[in-house]
Amino acid sequence: MDPLHALTLADVLREHARSWPERVATVDGERRITYRELQDRTCRLAHALAAVGVGPGDRMLWCGQNSARVLELLLAAAKLGAALCPANWRLSADELAFVIEDLEPAVTVWQEEEVGDAVRTARDATGAPGRWIAHDAPDEYEPFLAQGDPDDDFGDRDPAESVLFVYTSAWSGQPAAAMLSHTAVVTQGLVFGRAADIGPESVYLNSGPLFHLATAMQTFATFVAAGANVFTRRVDAEELCRLIDAERCTGAFLVGPTIKQILAVNADGRFDLKSLRTPAGKPAWTEMITVDTSPMARNPAGYGQTEVMGLLTTNLTAEPTVGTNGRALPGVQIRIVDPDDRDVPDGETGEIVARGATVMNGYWNRPDETARRLRGGWHHTNDLGRREVDGSISFIGPKARLIKSATENIYPAEVEATLASHPAVAECAVIGTPDRQWTQSVKAIVVLRDGETVTEAELVAHVRERIASYKKPRTVAFVDRLPRVGFAVDYDTLDEQFGGGGYPGGPGVGAR
Amino acid sequence: MDPLHALTLADVLREHARSWPERVATVDGERRITYRELQDRTCRLAHALAAVGVGPGDRMLWCGQNSARVLELLLAAAKLGAALCPANWRLSADELAFVIEDLEPAVTVWQEEEVGDAVRTARDATGAPGRWIAHDAPDEYEPFLAQGDPDDDFGDRDPAESVLFVYTSAWSGQPAAAMLSHTAVVTQGLVFGRAADIGPESVYLNSGPLFHLATAMQTFATFVAAGANVFTRRVDAEELCRLIDAERCTGAFLVGPTIKQILAVNADGRFDLKSLRTPAGKPAWTEMITVDTSPMARNPAGYGQTEVMGLLTTNLTAEPTVGTNGRALPGVQIRIVDPDDRDVPDGETGEIVARGATVMNGYWNRPDETARRLRGGWHHTNDLGRREVDGSISFIGPKARLIKSATENIYPAEVEATLASHPAVAECAVIGTPDRQWTQSVKAIVVLRDGETVTEAELVAHVRERIASYKKPRTVAFVDRLPRVGFAVDYDTLDEQFGGGGYPGGPGVGAR
Repeated sequence: MDPLHALTLADVLREHARSWPERVATVDGERRITYRELQDRTCRLAHALAAVGVGPGDRMLWCGQNSARVLELLLAAAKLGAALCPANWRLSADELAFVIEDLEPAVTVWQEEEVGDAVRTARDATGAPGRWIAHDAPDEYEPFLAQGDPDDDFGDRDPAESVLFVYTSAWSGQPAAAMLSHTAVVTQGLVFGRAADIGPESVYLNSGPLFHLATAMQTFATFVAAGANVFTRRVDAEELCRLIDAERCTGAFLVGPTIKQILAVNADGRFDLKSLRTPAGKPAWTEMITVDTSPMARNPAGYGQTEVMGLLTTNLTAEPTVGTNGRALPGVQIRIVDPDDRDVPDGETGEIVARGATVMNGYWNRPDETARRLRGGWHHTNDLGRREVDGSISFIGPKARLIKSATENIYPAEVEATLASHPAVAECAVIGTPDRQWTQSVKAIVVLRDGETVTEAELVAHVRERIASYKKPRTVAFVDRLPRVGFAVDYDTLDEQFGGGGYPGGPGVGAR
Repeated sequence: MDPLHALTLADVLREHARSWPERVATVDGERRITYRELQDRTCRLAHALAAVGVGPGDRMLWCGQNSARVLELLLAAAKLGAALCPANWRLSADELAFVIEDLEPAVTVWQEEEVGDAVRTARDATGAPGRWIAHDAPDEYEPFLAQGDPDDDFGDRDPAESVLFVYTSAWSGQPAAAMLSHTAVVTQGLVFGRAADIGPESVYLNSGPLFHLATAMQTFATFVAAGANVFTRRVDAEELCRLIDAERCTGAFLVGPTIKQILAVNADGRFDLKSLRTPAGKPAWTEMITVDTSPMARNPAGYGQTEVMGLLTTNLTAEPTVGTNGRALPGVQIRIVDPDDRDVPDGETGEIVARGATVMNGYWNRPDETARRLRGGWHHTNDLGRREVDGSISFIGPKARLIKSATENIYPAEVEATLASHPAVAECAVIGTPDRQWTQSVKAIVVLRDGETVTEAELVAHVRERIASYKKPRTVAFVDRLPRVGFAVDYDTLDEQFGGGGYPGGPGVGAR
């Protein structure tokens, strides 16, 4: 490593403690912590963690709701060369047990309130590996932290080390943790901070889940910019209003239903939400907030995934684009490739691959999948996209299985999207059936909208008119509903029912 | 190196060619070049340069005025693993000969117009090492470039490699070239681009010297953001007006006298300069342009140097600061240290040291000075500063020589700045004289303003009231003028005339 040019998350905190000693870094309930205090507390915490055996390469697990301690633990991990994984607190005990066994955490910081039952069940099922600290038990987290020395800071670490683990299911069936480096977190902070106008005056309300980068990317960008992060355990519209008003929050993670609730709660305008910058909405909402004019808000679009530290593409100008998902963020490269990793021509569908500082180091404990996804020095997103004539990107859908027609590659997601654009189609799935002459041929399974009718020939024509002819279904089966596993279409069952098979690369290749 | 996470200047260009194929990258006279064309041209150029022997680690020299070819050559160097040094075109033939002998360029691209005489004299004096190409001779640069293959791109390079060399005199007497990496250029592009609101819609008028980072930092930030760079050979107020109007330039490098000329040239408003964002000025200027509202324009301040890729500190908020020079830019760390590299307490003066992605790799051909300046993994700026109580930084002045009074360090620049704040003092210099009891004592040499008088005792009291007592001069000598070498005060002559000596660390240590 090269300390002269290094910048870890711990280094970012060190400079903030020097540059912004009295600036509020985190607000969590009654607890307000400045950047100087955050530096002291994470020094203490890192010493306490080191004393129970946490060292370079170790993992720590967070099993709780939103809390400033997630950031604190991440920064302590950064000082130690360890990593933090914030787990989804909505996981079942079984799912959590899988995570604990997969991650083998040296320390698990968990929460009694709301999630204690699942955590205790999972802990008992896995034999409670490592040290367990209940962060909401008054005699556990704070006394533990208080042991360490705040003035004895730790030495340099390599910013290429993994510091943040985030589980993602975008993999063959089983969740896997994407390992993200200091450089990934810091660079995304700088780049996303630019796109979203996040600066030292930003106050971000952490109202979305911290185990998902849609929220956490903004948390870290606010931290990198020396702004303030306000944490709320979970979404409650009135509490969000109170916090936005009291802390003058400039940003928050809000989904449509929450905005509806806020509109109801604040119909009388008793909370002043004018500090909040969001996209315009209904007139009542637009009047209540300040319309966001940051570069990426002027023409909202984007594509990303956990493995690239969140956002990979967006629009930084207001001008219209051909593609639906913007262009590569500064700092990353994107190509669209065929299954042999050759660039496909502009306008043709292929897999989106990327490289740059924000790309993960790999999946924890999944060497084969890591090698497959990062082959040739490019991260393979398992997602399909198209480079349009103006250079912008359209995200097509998950790659899932590939269908082979002679030498041509057919991506079911692309054919499905084309079929779904027919007004009579409610939903559909596309499989490949073995074909002696063409290797495979395309079969569509279609659910029609209530009261609509359409023939097989009409649907085939609809597709042929819109994408390359070899991608059109040879046959169409009409069904009442598609078989599903959870939310996902169950392609294995469709293959069984409709004679699918003969996919290139053998079973499981290319499947999510 | 790690291709998955790498981003060289060549990679930035590759992605721009994919994402913004039809976007104008450079405008230079009649020649407008899109990002796709720039990718083709730099591929060609890199092949042509490789064919005359330019390879990894080689240097190329630019001896001309502003031109889009500076960016083109830098990007070709980036593909080859070589570096480009844009020389100061105002150098004398002797100074240029020094640069040629120091740099040993594999290729020198030079300009006949205006600078041809000096270049030819220097070339002949140095035996014309390497290949020489006159960029303004119709049968040289363009036919040379045209030989290469635009479709055969080069392989991955390590972004930690030096790609840009910039000579700086901030070193013991002799100029030295600071070696700046791809990462330094790209990171400063992202960070400065954020501070100055540079995006894909930015159009930067390169009207300042490209051999100085004050201009070049903005050039590269505009390139990194996929904006357009407009080049003008040298400053001509009417031509600048024409270009701003015609190209809708959003930024330009303008000094006070140029603004005065523009106000005169455009008094009748025949050029529309409203696209240009600059700080507010006289009412006539403020009406002519658009007032810059970028983060760093709201409370202008800054400190930097060539060795850190330009800017190191600025204000990103409008709020007042105690320090005069803002805070560390995101991505760098700053400390204020004593001569033994220990942190001095806040509020005390010491040397500004920095680390981060924008710090140079070292000085070309100066291993000893490089080791001294980069010792302990921190770049020593040779500049004095102070960390104020709110964490902001005040730049005090060049470190120059250190005076030792018992165990205390006294920086002449700090004492000189305090003396100069007295209304009777026109200019002054401070030296150390040997002192048996205290190692050294402080002596001030002062030039008074015309018609002003002041006594030694009054000046000593003026200093004692403002900074630590041990820093005050023991004696003051009044002179008519200070001896100088060029612009710089000649401290060696002052030492001789006024009995200076006994400096810690031996001769030359700490001198600029």
